[in-house]
Amino acid sequence: MTQHSHQTAPTQFVEAAGVRFAYRRFGKTGAVPLVFNMHFTGTMDHWDPAVTDGFAKGREVILFDNTGISSSSGEVPTSIEEMAADAAAFVKALGPAEVDVLGFSLGGLVAQTLAIAEPKLVRRLVLVGTGPRSGEGMATLTPEAQEIFGATYENPDHLWLRVHFSPSQQSQAAGRDFLKRFRLRSQGRDPEVSEKVAQAQIEALVKWGAPRNNPYEYLKKLAQPTLVVNGGSDVIIYTVNSFILQQNIPNAQLILYPDANHGSLYQYPELFVRHVSMFLEDDQGRDA
Amino acid sequence: MTQHSHQTAPTQFVEAAGVRFAYRRFGKTGAVPLVFNMHFTGTMDHWDPAVTDGFAKGREVILFDNTGISSSSGEVPTSIEEMAADAAAFVKALGPAEVDVLGFSLGGLVAQTLAIAEPKLVRRLVLVGTGPRSGEGMATLTPEAQEIFGATYENPDHLWLRVHFSPSQQSQAAGRDFLKRFRLRSQGRDPEVSEKVAQAQIEALVKWGAPRNNPYEYLKKLAQPTLVVNGGSDVIIYTVNSFILQQNIPNAQLILYPDANHGSLYQYPELFVRHVSMFLEDDQGRDA
Repeated sequence: MTQHSHQTAPTQFVEAAGVRFAYRRFGKTGAVPLVFNMHFTGTMDHWDPAVTDGFAKGREVILFDNTGISSSSGEVPTSIEEMAADAAAFVKALGPAEVDVLGFSLGGLVAQTLAIAEPKLVRRLVLVGTGPRSGEGMATLTPEAQEIFGATYENPDHLWLRVHFSPSQQSQAAGRDFLKRFRLRSQGRDPEVSEKVAQAQIEALVKWGAPRNNPYEYLKKLAQPTLVVNGGSDVIIYTVNSFILQQNIPNAQLILYPDANHGSLYQYPELFVRHVSMFLEDDQGRDA
Repeated sequence: MTQHSHQTAPTQFVEAAGVRFAYRRFGKTGAVPLVFNMHFTGTMDHWDPAVTDGFAKGREVILFDNTGISSSSGEVPTSIEEMAADAAAFVKALGPAEVDVLGFSLGGLVAQTLAIAEPKLVRRLVLVGTGPRSGEGMATLTPEAQEIFGATYENPDHLWLRVHFSPSQQSQAAGRDFLKRFRLRSQGRDPEVSEKVAQAQIEALVKWGAPRNNPYEYLKKLAQPTLVVNGGSDVIIYTVNSFILQQNIPNAQLILYPDANHGSLYQYPELFVRHVSMFLEDDQGRDA
């Protein structure tokens, strides 16, 4: 048991594959740790403490910056495969024999690729607000994403009110609560990423989303029990992509939340932690 | 608190709308009762005791035969609207000011119609293995359903192995466990329904499924928090219909289970009871 939380866990470093990876690790030891993979242009500080500390009550939480992001060294690779290989190198350098992996949006592309490449290292997989190769509306950023990421905001954090939350009053109120929570950590925050990071990540996203034949066939290789989660109204990676993931991954459960956009895990943090914990703790993966 | 269970609850009767409705009522009193609406050709004895007794630990469970089914009097109506009106009359005659309603398959069509017609009577709604008006593949029975219901079985119960469970070894094993459970009640069982019941229900199903303009518009009137549940591989009412329900009901959560056909609630009874209980007990309907 470590006493640290989302707010106090120090940023530590580990070397692997020529990269000095920044990470934070906290929560109850004993269970299989849960490794978090972040979205487009996000750092360790973009996770919601209501989510990370929620999980930390029951398991170790590992946040990290992948190659070239914020406090980690190196250049951001321009393919999801390289990002997944770097994530694998990081986890192996850190030491746990087995991890559960959660990926959000871009991080969900990395997480599924990592799970396929490393079936022994990754025990279970949680994919949030993400999609398959060549998914619907994934050949480029969606029109909504282009507009939302292209706009300027008096308060830059307000970008996330539009990325992660629906226009409804209730969702926007949940978004403002999220913004307060994700600014709570006052010391040792991650630096924001540069425009260069965004460009490399977009190049990787576009390669991933490009049309191809039988695009979902690779998902048959995903052997781990998988939980797919999204908001019912995701305009960043369309919700139908979560349905496609569930339909094509051999052992996948799907949960969609009402009146929620891309950041459903930040809109319903308690419910999300309960649903995911049930999934991670279910020894059978099924009742029967 | 009643001491009765799925196996021992006596069949009781109440008169309403000229029908003598058969019902059973058991479980912990105090919370809002949960009223179960059965599938095509099913009776009160087609519910899984692992599901009904699972819920009964936390709330009252009310099973009933709608008009013309098994132990209830009258003729089965040939429209979902009439079935829903009969269900409303039954609940009102029984007395609770407010109920939660669970509907499975045909029962899910009745349940959503009842919820729209009776917004004060129905607090929350659970729709399992069901679909919207004019849903995908709902203009007739699906080809798979026609084959499965049209075949003959040495043991008639084995029909349900194909209706409710996927062809996988694990799902079929879960199905055999279900068949044992649903035969456990030895006394006071409901009589099986006649061919006439099936014909009237099919007439109602075909009217419901007929193509129409803006077929999902009516779902906007569904004001209750709703949980939609299905197997990821439902061949009786195609799984995509559960996604369509979630996308069109204003406040709906969706859960799809892996490697599961029409009877996902019988394949994962413990998980289903936990998920639905979380939904029914969530006072906010959301975290925020």
